[in-house]
Amino acid sequence: MRKIVHAAIECLGRDASASTSEIAKVAGVGRVTLYSHFATREELVEAALVEVLAEGDAVLDGLDLEGDPVEVLTALIDSGWQLIAKSSALLQAAQKVLPPGRIQDLHARPAERVEQLIRRGQRDGAFRSDLPSRWMAAAVHHLIHGAATDVADGRLAADEAPDLVLRTVFSGVLAPGRVDA
Amino acid sequence: MRKIVHAAIECLGRDASASTSEIAKVAGVGRVTLYSHFATREELVEAALVEVLAEGDAVLDGLDLEGDPVEVLTALIDSGWQLIAKSSALLQAAQKVLPPGRIQDLHARPAERVEQLIRRGQRDGAFRSDLPSRWMAAAVHHLIHGAATDVADGRLAADEAPDLVLRTVFSGVLAPGRVDA
Repeated sequence: MRKIVHAAIECLGRDASASTSEIAKVAGVGRVTLYSHFATREELVEAALVEVLAEGDAVLDGLDLEGDPVEVLTALIDSGWQLIAKSSALLQAAQKVLPPGRIQDLHARPAERVEQLIRRGQRDGAFRSDLPSRWMAAAVHHLIHGAATDVADGRLAADEAPDLVLRTVFSGVLAPGRVDA
Repeated sequence: MRKIVHAAIECLGRDASASTSEIAKVAGVGRVTLYSHFATREELVEAALVEVLAEGDAVLDGLDLEGDPVEVLTALIDSGWQLIAKSSALLQAAQKVLPPGRIQDLHARPAERVEQLIRRGQRDGAFRSDLPSRWMAAAVHHLIHGAATDVADGRLAADEAPDLVLRTVFSGVLAPGRVDA
């Protein structure tokens, strides 16, 4: 079953409209086997998104979330970028078949951890405190996902994107007087 | 035909999955009449998006794009916000049925005009010039659209959003030393 999910991440990451036949082929299983695990294409798209978000959680686990807020946010954007950029087409696929509330629920845990980091940075005086932490976490999310869409659509070079996102985020989150990261 | 397009904007703005039957009903026409103008639901969704983007262009026409860049960008976000917020579900509907390249092509003209404004602000010294104007215009777009999605999904209050977007954008675009708008 894991190999079907990983094949789905690979195929849907390349092409949001990849079919279950293509995914079965890449997984090296027959369509009957695939459908015995995932009754519909929707179920498989959801399983692929759940797996990618679990990888995102593992990235967050690997960071010292208690360290210097500026350094942690930098590391988070750097490592999160790779995952989000490669999953941009998969997210498009999910937006086509899953209800918006479901995608939001699946993002709740990573979003909450980023928000906690921002709240701590605000308490420490590292981050600006005149904007709600929830919106600041959302703004980071929108800029990373937006840049990933730009890269997928050929409007932005993949190797320039993480640096642009970092510099834009930092001018939006640092407390006044802090030097840009 | 205009009343069908306006009914589509109204229905799809409320619910991205609104059917052609619902749209025909709101327009006060029969389904046969609707299908004589728009052979498929896709064509109607595209016509609705084209119309909303034309309204966006009219908003840009109404602004003095040659005025003070900070004031123009403020006015642009204020008036653009209303249009984008009410079209958030319509854009979701378009993303489900139109190829991504088509949505991008339709946005090209307004995007280019925002980018021109940013380039002029960079030349005047009002906006930071260490980031490419194309990315800065894209970042404004991502923050406005992201906030519109947050409002649609109930994560952000509609009356707080424009101010948060403005303050976040300005900390990201103003030249160093400029006071926040």
